[in-house]
Amino acid sequence: MSNFNLHILGCGSAKPTLRHNPTCQVVEHNGNLYMVDCGEGAQTMMARMHLRMSRLQHIFISHLHGDHCFGLPGLVSTMALHGKGGSITIHIFKDGAELFGNMFRYFVRDIPMQINFDIIEYGNHVIYEDSVLKISTIPLKHRVPAVGFLFEEKPKLRHINGEMAKFHQVPLYMMNSIREGADFVKPDGTVVANSILTTAPTPSVRYAYCSDTMPASKIAPVVEGVDWMYHEATYANDNIRAARERFHSTAEQAATLARDANVGNLIIGHYSSRYDDETVLLSEARSVYPRTILADEGMHIDLLKGFDAQNLR
Amino acid sequence: MSNFNLHILGCGSAKPTLRHNPTCQVVEHNGNLYMVDCGEGAQTMMARMHLRMSRLQHIFISHLHGDHCFGLPGLVSTMALHGKGGSITIHIFKDGAELFGNMFRYFVRDIPMQINFDIIEYGNHVIYEDSVLKISTIPLKHRVPAVGFLFEEKPKLRHINGEMAKFHQVPLYMMNSIREGADFVKPDGTVVANSILTTAPTPSVRYAYCSDTMPASKIAPVVEGVDWMYHEATYANDNIRAARERFHSTAEQAATLARDANVGNLIIGHYSSRYDDETVLLSEARSVYPRTILADEGMHIDLLKGFDAQNLR
Repeated sequence: MSNFNLHILGCGSAKPTLRHNPTCQVVEHNGNLYMVDCGEGAQTMMARMHLRMSRLQHIFISHLHGDHCFGLPGLVSTMALHGKGGSITIHIFKDGAELFGNMFRYFVRDIPMQINFDIIEYGNHVIYEDSVLKISTIPLKHRVPAVGFLFEEKPKLRHINGEMAKFHQVPLYMMNSIREGADFVKPDGTVVANSILTTAPTPSVRYAYCSDTMPASKIAPVVEGVDWMYHEATYANDNIRAARERFHSTAEQAATLARDANVGNLIIGHYSSRYDDETVLLSEARSVYPRTILADEGMHIDLLKGFDAQNLR
Repeated sequence: MSNFNLHILGCGSAKPTLRHNPTCQVVEHNGNLYMVDCGEGAQTMMARMHLRMSRLQHIFISHLHGDHCFGLPGLVSTMALHGKGGSITIHIFKDGAELFGNMFRYFVRDIPMQINFDIIEYGNHVIYEDSVLKISTIPLKHRVPAVGFLFEEKPKLRHINGEMAKFHQVPLYMMNSIREGADFVKPDGTVVANSILTTAPTPSVRYAYCSDTMPASKIAPVVEGVDWMYHEATYANDNIRAARERFHSTAEQAATLARDANVGNLIIGHYSSRYDDETVLLSEARSVYPRTILADEGMHIDLLKGFDAQNLR
C-alpha cells in the first residue's frame, strides 16, 4: 500500500483545553504507522481516528515535557492488553527511557510485545531507516533538549514505459533493476539506455515536524525544501515576549522559517490555550507565507498531494 | 456549602473504549473535592464536568493498575500549570508513591503547590478525617493489593426548635453547644432538656467505593448499611469464569453484596469492554437488588437523596 499521510491526534499545548488535545500525530507510510509525540489521550484518539495499534511499531518523543509524552503508559498498556505481539520501539531522550522504562516494568508485565528504547541524541542524526523511508532528528531550541523529526521517502523506482519495454523485449525478471536505473543489455550485446525504457519516478516526499522550539538558525538547513512542515505556533505577535521567554515560536516566526527554507506547505499547531479561535495565528502566518493551514484534531493530510488538492482550508 | 455529591468521570475497565473512560470519580463534600482513582483523561473530564481543580486536595488510588492511575501525571502537571498553591495529597500504595514521585520530580518542577504522598496500608484504616468527614479504606480482593474507600459524614448538629428556644430565652452564644446535644441551664438553675429544644439532626450519609475486587467476606462488615455503594460489575453471568480468574465481580455478585450488607442504593460500573450495552449487567443486578443503577460518564448523584428523587434510572 503506497501512501504517505499525516494524522493529527492533538495540536494543543501544555495547558489542556476542551478544544485541543496535547501533542500527538501519526505519520502513515505505506501502511505502517509512526507516532510523533504522545500526549495524554493518544490511545483514545487512535481509536477514534481508526488508526490500528497493530500497525504501530515506532514512537518518537521530541522532548520530555508532559504534554508530549504522558500518553505513553496508557497507549503501551493498551497495546499489550490487546495482545499485540512483535515489538514497539520508543525513540526518546535518555531520562525518558529510564522514567517510562520503570513505569512499563511495573505496569505492563508478562506480555508478548517487546518494548525497546532507542536513545535520542541531540542534533541531526538518522534514527530510523528502511528500504523506502528514512527518519532523522532536527535540532530544535527549547528549554529542555528537543528535536524535531524529518520523514524522507527514499528515491522511488522509475516508471517503465510499457511499449518500449515490449518493443525491446525486456524480460520480466530484469524489470526491477531497470526500474532502479540500469540500462538493458540485449542478448546480442546491444545496450538500450534506461532513459528510453523508463520515465522519471514519482517524486519522493519529505515531511518535517518541528515542535517545541523557538526560532534557531540551525533548523532551516535541515528542513530546506521539504514538501510539508508542521511547526509550532504557540503564540500570535501579541505574545511575542512570552514566546521568547518560554522558548516557543509565534505563527509569524513559523511562517518566516517556511518561507526562508523554501518549504512547500506549512501546518501550524501547538496553540496556546489563550486563543479561543486560532484565526489570528493563521492570518499572521499567511501574511508571511500563504501556503499555511491550521492543524486540528481528527485532520488527515495526504502528504503526496498539495493542500489545494484535498479540501484543506 | 453543605452538599455530598458523587461525580462519575470514568466507569470503564482496563481496555479503553470510545464509550467509557478508565476509572475516575470525584466525591464532593461541603464544596471540597476528593478524587477516587485517576484513569487517563481525568483532567479533561474534570474540565468537562466543571469540577474546579482548586477545590481538589486529596486523591485516593485504590490499586496500582494503569486504568486507575495513569491520569495522575497529567492532572498534577495541569494543576501546577494553573498555578494552584497549597497542597495535593495522593493516598496510594507504596510502589505508586515511588513511581509517580519520580515522574513528578522530573516533570512537575518549580511549582507553588506541594505534592504529598500518604502511603496506604492494606486493611480497614482511617486515612482522612476532619470535623465533618471521615474516609477509611475497605480491604478488597484483587490480583494486586487493593482497597476501596468509605466516605462517612460525621454526626451533624441537631436542629433548634426556634419557638422553644425563644420561649426559654436561650442566648445566641449557647446555640452551638445545644445543637451538639447539651441541655440548657437557665440562670436560675432550672434545666431544660435538650430534647425539648432540638429535633434530631439530618442523618449522616455514608458512601462506599469498591473497585476492583472479587467477592470477599471481609467487605460486607465494612460497608454494612451504607447509604450508597459503587461496586465494580465488570462482567455479566455469561463471563463468571473470567470474573473469577481476573479477580473481578459480576453484576449479580455486586448486587448480592448490596443486599446482604443492607446497602441503600447500588451503583455499578467498571464495565468490561465486551459489553456494548450494559443493560444485561443492570438486569442481572436488579434481579437480586432492585435499587441498582448503572454508572455513566458525566453522571452527578446527590448522595443526600435517594435515587428515586433525582431522575436516575
